[in-house]
Amino acid sequence: MSQKNAAPSPRTRVKRVHERGAYDRTTIDAILDASPIAHVGYIFEDAPFVTPTLHWREGDHVYWHGSAASRMIETADGAEVCLTVTLLDGLVLARSAFHHSANYRSVMLFGRATLISDPEAKEARLKAFMEGLVPGRWETLRPILQKELKATSILSMPIIEASAKVRTGPPKDDEPDYALDIWAGTLPLQISTGAPVDDPRLKPGLCVPEAVRGVKIG
Amino acid sequence: MSQKNAAPSPRTRVKRVHERGAYDRTTIDAILDASPIAHVGYIFEDAPFVTPTLHWREGDHVYWHGSAASRMIETADGAEVCLTVTLLDGLVLARSAFHHSANYRSVMLFGRATLISDPEAKEARLKAFMEGLVPGRWETLRPILQKELKATSILSMPIIEASAKVRTGPPKDDEPDYALDIWAGTLPLQISTGAPVDDPRLKPGLCVPEAVRGVKIG
Repeated sequence: MSQKNAAPSPRTRVKRVHERGAYDRTTIDAILDASPIAHVGYIFEDAPFVTPTLHWREGDHVYWHGSAASRMIETADGAEVCLTVTLLDGLVLARSAFHHSANYRSVMLFGRATLISDPEAKEARLKAFMEGLVPGRWETLRPILQKELKATSILSMPIIEASAKVRTGPPKDDEPDYALDIWAGTLPLQISTGAPVDDPRLKPGLCVPEAVRGVKIG
Repeated sequence: MSQKNAAPSPRTRVKRVHERGAYDRTTIDAILDASPIAHVGYIFEDAPFVTPTLHWREGDHVYWHGSAASRMIETADGAEVCLTVTLLDGLVLARSAFHHSANYRSVMLFGRATLISDPEAKEARLKAFMEGLVPGRWETLRPILQKELKATSILSMPIIEASAKVRTGPPKDDEPDYALDIWAGTLPLQISTGAPVDDPRLKPGLCVPEAVRGVKIG
């Protein structure tokens, strides 16, 4: 496991409930790796935009991709972005409205995004992306074409300025409220996978690969 | 059901894969209501920030809340924000890497956020928030205190400039690729609730309320 830290900067230092904040790469990487969904924030014509996208991590970088014609890709290249990954792990139901909360894991990552232009590097990144989700699938696919690599843009951002924020555990009520006749506790939430659904045009005789059944997210 | 539309503006008009775009309030409201998690984007010292938060909708407005001392709340009041809600409904596994995709529902909502200052209005909004998640719970709680209302800030944004983007269904492969011996299909994903967990300090004899068991998200 990495022992590196992403040093807290003024904007990554967790201000609210600071005991929930973490800056170690082990915590940050685990959260980035747990969810394929990220929300990428960027500024376009002086206004904030937040675009959901799939992302992946390799070593000290995160990557996300999109059509070469996408506004998000065009705007984010070379620009300051904030990439946030969040997993909602549960509702925290306290004895007062005020102490209701949520259990969650989140990472905010700041930096400048850079477009990857070399086709071989792009192919290697896309392969790593797919291998992370469905190991072994890449080699079974119809090989990627040069025109497809051209039509796909990949953005890269180093994991330098990042913070994690995590809440776990039961509600924290005001001391006198524990004596009240009110049920309190947590309602766990998680992302679950359903049974794989065959493409209606699937060639007869093909079975769901084990790697697809084995996908776990969260 | 609402028949209102959120008119597409230059920034809400879905550029990429425009057949996935929708601007009718029925679609937009259903997505906003399906997930309690939103990602709020705002600009702080010329850089984009994306903060995860719980949100709720009442009629033509969305709301989110936080500590009165939160940077997100302070910064967003009166400022342009982009609030994005995303549900990842599945992985779409095609016969080529290029046509891999995701099924999802997302809404991007643009506008100016406004702080609600009237304590009675704040209490009514918080009650509606909780009733939306766990119906009936509000009345069972220790009543909210004035100092708690004071410490809680609520931001409001009208649903005027919004777009939804939705993908459903099987992969769309290149026509010749359907003949290949490659499994293709979708892997459904959903948010599932686990069994409620009692607070370790729960008063003996209290049972999990039916409304908590009935919470459904997604």
